[in-house]
Amino acid sequence: MLFSRRNLLRATGIAGAAAVSKVALAALPEPVMQTRPDTMPPLVPSSGRPYNPVVTLNGWTLPWRMNAGVKEFHLVAEPVLRELAPGMKAHLWGYNGQSPGPTIEVVEGDRVRIFLTNKLPEHTSMHWHGQRLPNGMDGVSGLTQPSIQPGKTFVYEFVARRPGTFMYHPHADEMVQMAMGMMGFWVTHPRQKHPLIAEVDRDFCFLLNAYDIEPGTATPKIMTMLDFNLWTWNSRIFPGIDTLNVRRGDRVRVRIGNLTMTNHPIHLHGHEFEVSGTDGGPVPKAARWPEVTTDIAVGQMRQIEFIADEEGDWAFHCHKSHHTMNAMGHAVPTMIGVDHRGLARQITKLIPDYMVMGERGMADMAEMEMPLPDNTIPMMTGAGPFGSVEMGGMFSMLKVRRNQKPGDYGNPGWFRQPTGTQAFEWAGALAEPARFKAEGGRAMPGRQAPSGEIEVNVRKPGGHAGH
Amino acid sequence: MLFSRRNLLRATGIAGAAAVSKVALAALPEPVMQTRPDTMPPLVPSSGRPYNPVVTLNGWTLPWRMNAGVKEFHLVAEPVLRELAPGMKAHLWGYNGQSPGPTIEVVEGDRVRIFLTNKLPEHTSMHWHGQRLPNGMDGVSGLTQPSIQPGKTFVYEFVARRPGTFMYHPHADEMVQMAMGMMGFWVTHPRQKHPLIAEVDRDFCFLLNAYDIEPGTATPKIMTMLDFNLWTWNSRIFPGIDTLNVRRGDRVRVRIGNLTMTNHPIHLHGHEFEVSGTDGGPVPKAARWPEVTTDIAVGQMRQIEFIADEEGDWAFHCHKSHHTMNAMGHAVPTMIGVDHRGLARQITKLIPDYMVMGERGMADMAEMEMPLPDNTIPMMTGAGPFGSVEMGGMFSMLKVRRNQKPGDYGNPGWFRQPTGTQAFEWAGALAEPARFKAEGGRAMPGRQAPSGEIEVNVRKPGGHAGH
Amino acid sequence: MLFSRRNLLRATGIAGAAAVSKVALAALPEPVMQTRPDTMPPLVPSSGRPYNPVVTLNGWTLPWRMNAGVKEFHLVAEPVLRELAPGMKAHLWGYNGQSPGPTIEVVEGDRVRIFLTNKLPEHTSMHWHGQRLPNGMDGVSGLTQPSIQPGKTFVYEFVARRPGTFMYHPHADEMVQMAMGMMGFWVTHPRQKHPLIAEVDRDFCFLLNAYDIEPGTATPKIMTMLDFNLWTWNSRIFPGIDTLNVRRGDRVRVRIGNLTMTNHPIHLHGHEFEVSGTDGGPVPKAARWPEVTTDIAVGQMRQIEFIADEEGDWAFHCHKSHHTMNAMGHAVPTMIGVDHRGLARQITKLIPDYMVMGERGMADMAEMEMPLPDNTIPMMTGAGPFGSVEMGGMFSMLKVRRNQKPGDYGNPGWFRQPTGTQAFEWAGALAEPARFKAEGGRAMPGRQAPSGEIEVNVRKPGGHAGH
Repeated sequence: MLFSRRNLLRATGIAGAAAVSKVALAALPEPVMQTRPDTMPPLVPSSGRPYNPVVTLNGWTLPWRMNAGVKEFHLVAEPVLRELAPGMKAHLWGYNGQSPGPTIEVVEGDRVRIFLTNKLPEHTSMHWHGQRLPNGMDGVSGLTQPSIQPGKTFVYEFVARRPGTFMYHPHADEMVQMAMGMMGFWVTHPRQKHPLIAEVDRDFCFLLNAYDIEPGTATPKIMTMLDFNLWTWNSRIFPGIDTLNVRRGDRVRVRIGNLTMTNHPIHLHGHEFEVSGTDGGPVPKAARWPEVTTDIAVGQMRQIEFIADEEGDWAFHCHKSHHTMNAMGHAVPTMIGVDHRGLARQITKLIPDYMVMGERGMADMAEMEMPLPDNTIPMMTGAGPFGSVEMGGMFSMLKVRRNQKPGDYGNPGWFRQPTGTQAFEWAGALAEPARFKAEGGRAMPGRQAPSGEIEVNVRKPGGHAGH
Repeated sequence: MLFSRRNLLRATGIAGAAAVSKVALAALPEPVMQTRPDTMPPLVPSSGRPYNPVVTLNGWTLPWRMNAGVKEFHLVAEPVLRELAPGMKAHLWGYNGQSPGPTIEVVEGDRVRIFLTNKLPEHTSMHWHGQRLPNGMDGVSGLTQPSIQPGKTFVYEFVARRPGTFMYHPHADEMVQMAMGMMGFWVTHPRQKHPLIAEVDRDFCFLLNAYDIEPGTATPKIMTMLDFNLWTWNSRIFPGIDTLNVRRGDRVRVRIGNLTMTNHPIHLHGHEFEVSGTDGGPVPKAARWPEVTTDIAVGQMRQIEFIADEEGDWAFHCHKSHHTMNAMGHAVPTMIGVDHRGLARQITKLIPDYMVMGERGMADMAEMEMPLPDNTIPMMTGAGPFGSVEMGGMFSMLKVRRNQKPGDYGNPGWFRQPTGTQAFEWAGALAEPARFKAEGGRAMPGRQAPSGEIEVNVRKPGGHAGH
Repeated sequence: MLFSRRNLLRATGIAGAAAVSKVALAALPEPVMQTRPDTMPPLVPSSGRPYNPVVTLNGWTLPWRMNAGVKEFHLVAEPVLRELAPGMKAHLWGYNGQSPGPTIEVVEGDRVRIFLTNKLPEHTSMHWHGQRLPNGMDGVSGLTQPSIQPGKTFVYEFVARRPGTFMYHPHADEMVQMAMGMMGFWVTHPRQKHPLIAEVDRDFCFLLNAYDIEPGTATPKIMTMLDFNLWTWNSRIFPGIDTLNVRRGDRVRVRIGNLTMTNHPIHLHGHEFEVSGTDGGPVPKAARWPEVTTDIAVGQMRQIEFIADEEGDWAFHCHKSHHTMNAMGHAVPTMIGVDHRGLARQITKLIPDYMVMGERGMADMAEMEMPLPDNTIPMMTGAGPFGSVEMGGMFSMLKVRRNQKPGDYGNPGWFRQPTGTQAFEWAGALAEPARFKAEGGRAMPGRQAPSGEIEVNVRKPGGHAGH
């Protein structure tokens, strides 16, 4: 079996990060592997200047060891089996057991040494997107270095010169290797207080990626340019994406990088935010825009920041509606408004498994028991407190609670809407709106005589619009 | 018939907005319906703080009534028949007789109550994109409320806490319901003068949407992710989109929201503008960029502002060239440069209706009498003062006139280019440029001896570029 | 033959720009033609206020003549044969022998007269994107002027009122004519020192364009909306795109305009930059963001500026991975992880030319001798100093050298990585990383006893993340 040839530790969480050995450069640090797709607790430095570590959504932070003043990491490029959501797994390429790879987290000024071992069937390299470094460490295969052949290990070493948010990914057979999931996050904390880098209470990060995996299969089609059917955050799809859980009043930062083939407009409900930094550095305060949706282009990183001052379960998602759907259904014909009782019989003769669906819209999809191919999940799904959320793909929630403890990233469960704060079904005269009549040019006559004495918006006398 | 089962008022303009009744909360306000796709005059408040109302392009503003200090609106989600342009209608889903729904216009601090009646064949909900509100009023089906079943009415109520530009759309079967046209605009005027919200002379708004309707049909294909063939502004295509008519010197604001599946770079001719606000709030003045094209991402709203100081008829459009075309022709083979007299005969044997077109480009398309399927309009069309404008889709014009009256939004007709200000045909020696010769490394020798004494741009001695 | 009917000068570089005649307006300036796709040296004014001229990547600057105080240019719209890269040519439409057309370069306040001769088989017009000008000079066919019929010449005249970066393209059969390559750049230098327009050492410009040319053919399919297979800079693909060669410490400006159908996130390695201006004007300094990738929307121009302070050969490219690939391969099935020895035999029976490829990824593609159709080049290609760069399309390099001479735009060759600054193969125990074991919850145990006394990042006691 592809993934059983090594004896992976099936322990809870990351495979231990407390113990390090003071080995010489002559000995490679043994790579730390990850076997689970859950959001792992942040790692904090055992000594040195403390920082508030990032939490990688459905990911983890790579442990390092100090070796004569150099922070050493070991990444292993390899085929991995990634769970996209419970019930669906994908054969991807990644690092250290997962896709994306682990987050690398260092401090400005750190000298960093990364060992990269290639366990793929083809050559690779590593580009440290956004970093200032010697040209020979830039990782562009053929241009700045030879490629790393299968079975070989290369050493990258440079100083993390500027604080900020970065990414890493191959620059060798790049289209294929990124389409297979090879990428990771990099955070460099400032060494000292920085006027443009806020100290935040919560600091999340994740990458936007996309796959084209036909229902019933598990390997991405690597030549797809546009028609991806799985839009993922850190190689996870809703309802497999963890929620972002914060305390009311927290200053929250979310760092998001895009390595797909299209822009993703990331939208947060209930709060405005600003982009506080990019992979190019912190954004000057005077230059920031208030937003509820920030458009993250490919090969860009955006840090969004806000005060989580509204309690509740707030949707947080890509605003392209197909990107909050899972696979399936792209070939479904539109049946809206069609009485297709006869038609369905005819189609069924041609396509025995054909389902009559969508006659009234697609909302039935989320609730019905539809037979699915193996290894896929419904297009619209997700059980919420009030029924199906009818979402998929790039969708999660920001959960804001007044009594979420500092440092507790656990899911507090569903928000309980306080009395009188929730949309409710109108219990009055239900027949009323069905009449829909409008008489004599009057808009809202009701049955009472119009009083005309109260405030109302009216058409201004003499005003008109042309066309 | 689907759309004749109610006796819709066929009156001019909105079906009356002058009369309101002081009914109790126990009685639903009767919904105001709209039957025409024209740009309707703005509504002004009959009392209270005045504001300069917005004009919705090919749309209208929803009348409200005051009920014990609460501004009440009634939206009805329902199938509608929308005219996309004269000669083409679509079976969409919308609100109160049209798609998009009417613009909701309130003042900062207003308490707003919206009744939403579901007349669709499936459940729905309403999300108030960008608003600060109680979590239970956020309208995410399954997550913050149960869905609204067919025939039911739900009540949303909240205070319009921050001034700005917002949108509304369902958050239930969202992909389908937005693909069918369910969306609308929301403007909250500031209660007091706001340092970042300018008082403007003209204030327009519209939504970007897109449909995939095969020529000869009328219902959108709701599973289309990328290959839309109708790119619309407020569910209208050129030449069915009204022009934006202003007075020279006016400060103009245009509020544009995008609910399609791709970015739309909105381009204005003849003027620079700045983005003065987003759905996240007003943009600080120091942070604004000068632009002639602003890229509006999906799920974003952009307010553009400028002084209309150049008289004329200025094109205003999405700059993606396919988005200023109507349906048809995506399967037309390229014939440029092909002498296909023989080929055409062969193709015609296979495809009897095959037209030889495009041999010299596609410009013939705009003028020729091409047989079209029912219920569609040409790909390139629009009669201008100097011939066909050869456009479609997301295209309109800003008409700037020195004598357009304040408050008059009517179309002033075509601009008359002042003498000497228009590109003209060269009446000189026409044979001249046909010779195209260049001799002895000299660029513009003409037949006269070069004088060499006048200013010219030259290649710098010794300068060279490599490759 | 289409392109042999005129006797084009095959001279080196532009066909002479040193000599000009003082002809009357009655005589058309003879148009200057270009026959080569190389980056041509900049032109400098022979008198008048000097400026630092732009260098057009794989393009050239159009010579002008002064005529009674008016700067006169002559553009000829015509079919052209453009070399996309050595080994691949395309039948495009362009100006003065090439696509894109030559760069027009003037000074703020110049009165400019452009003669446009139409040698195409259909009508055209010219829009001066971003310029302030009389409405009748705006070039929108049908709206502001009649179209220019084949064989006719039109005259445009206006004052270049504001300094900045602009584009030109037809506004007649626009979709087709831009899909065929009709476009060009326009730079207006400031007349005086401008507080927001920096004086730079190097000033490059190019346009983003895209074509859909099936391998084995030479004419673009003009109806393609999304599935382009050739992503080009100034109608060139890597390795046919020249490099940007600068001196270490130079202030560099690159002006980039997008006339494709999608956003292009342009990414520079090794340096951060800021967007200093758009086609709307210079960006206020306080409003600029630090970036390593700027997303350029369609119909937008972005000026990026930076100090080239890092020596080396830095990749500079669109970050959409398919846009750094050439044509071919979009129909190749994914073979990763498939043992397809038997399958290949079966496919080969059906498709005799079928190649077994991609079993281990696609990197083999760049190096293998694959039979290609005529008139195309490999999907992944480009010989670098350390092997194949495995790129195509929108890819080039910024070459920064300490001893590149001012004014020398020539290619300095490959960068020689200083000793100790390049990623290297690990010569230590190669068997080491293959064991991949992790024991007892410890992360990096190695074989030595963990000392535990050195700095390490650890999981905080009690910290946990939920899901």
